[in-house]
Amino acid sequence: MKKILIPIDGSEHAQKAALWVKNFFKDFKNVSVTFLHVSDLPKELMPHSYMMESIIEPTLIEEIINEKKEQAFKSVAGVFEDTEIKTEYVNKVGNPAEVIAQVAATENFDLVVIGSRGLGEIKGILLGSVSDRVAHICKRPVLIVK
Amino acid sequence: MKKILIPIDGSEHAQKAALWVKNFFKDFKNVSVTFLHVSDLPKELMPHSYMMESIIEPTLIEEIINEKKEQAFKSVAGVFEDTEIKTEYVNKVGNPAEVIAQVAATENFDLVVIGSRGLGEIKGILLGSVSDRVAHICKRPVLIVK
Repeated sequence: MKKILIPIDGSEHAQKAALWVKNFFKDFKNVSVTFLHVSDLPKELMPHSYMMESIIEPTLIEEIINEKKEQAFKSVAGVFEDTEIKTEYVNKVGNPAEVIAQVAATENFDLVVIGSRGLGEIKGILLGSVSDRVAHICKRPVLIVK
Repeated sequence: MKKILIPIDGSEHAQKAALWVKNFFKDFKNVSVTFLHVSDLPKELMPHSYMMESIIEPTLIEEIINEKKEQAFKSVAGVFEDTEIKTEYVNKVGNPAEVIAQVAATENFDLVVIGSRGLGEIKGILLGSVSDRVAHICKRPVLIVK
């Protein structure tokens, strides 16, 4: 079984990555897909933060995390419906690139397929995109879908 | 048929990419691999350069190109020998990242699989690696093998 990790964030870039995997691997046997959403709340809002209680209700944080997660999962739900590819959904909290790299390595994924934000976006030019950072720090093979 | 392009330069990074493709795709049907070597001679030594005749004999340039090309082809020969994956070998002259991106786009490859030089190398830190540049300029999906 070849294990493919697809990080998702609710964007069309992530959806594009999922559709590419479907199109490329639909006729192959023994491929499984794990969708990974990473909740990247500001540090102060992270659960277990020392500052948490002073700023915001824990239940509200949980609501925000859940809402974003559901939106991300929904954006790719059904992509592999008409294939034999098995899918599972995972949610984590933390820095997206670091969590993606960590999950890919510790759970020994064969491949990470991530959507590129492209160079057109100002944020991408100034800060580097998540896909760039994953490509650099991830110890497993990373496929960047345009 | 899924068309995979593997740029090679005679290095172990390129060999690693080829071995990864073999290991990942050996049980899949309908995959073909094209090995692409790009001869990146200094501009003055490129065939058809205006300065060419004044510096070096054209036959010597051809010899250098051929020798590097043969070395690169040799480094991956036999990787797919015991699989059903069909291979072909292509050589071009020019800037490696640009030629790789161009070939991937114009010949409509499904996937470019390229070995990463890693961040440890000084050249990679200062100039960016060929794999980084391919990942940025290539319009087709790029898979970076560590």
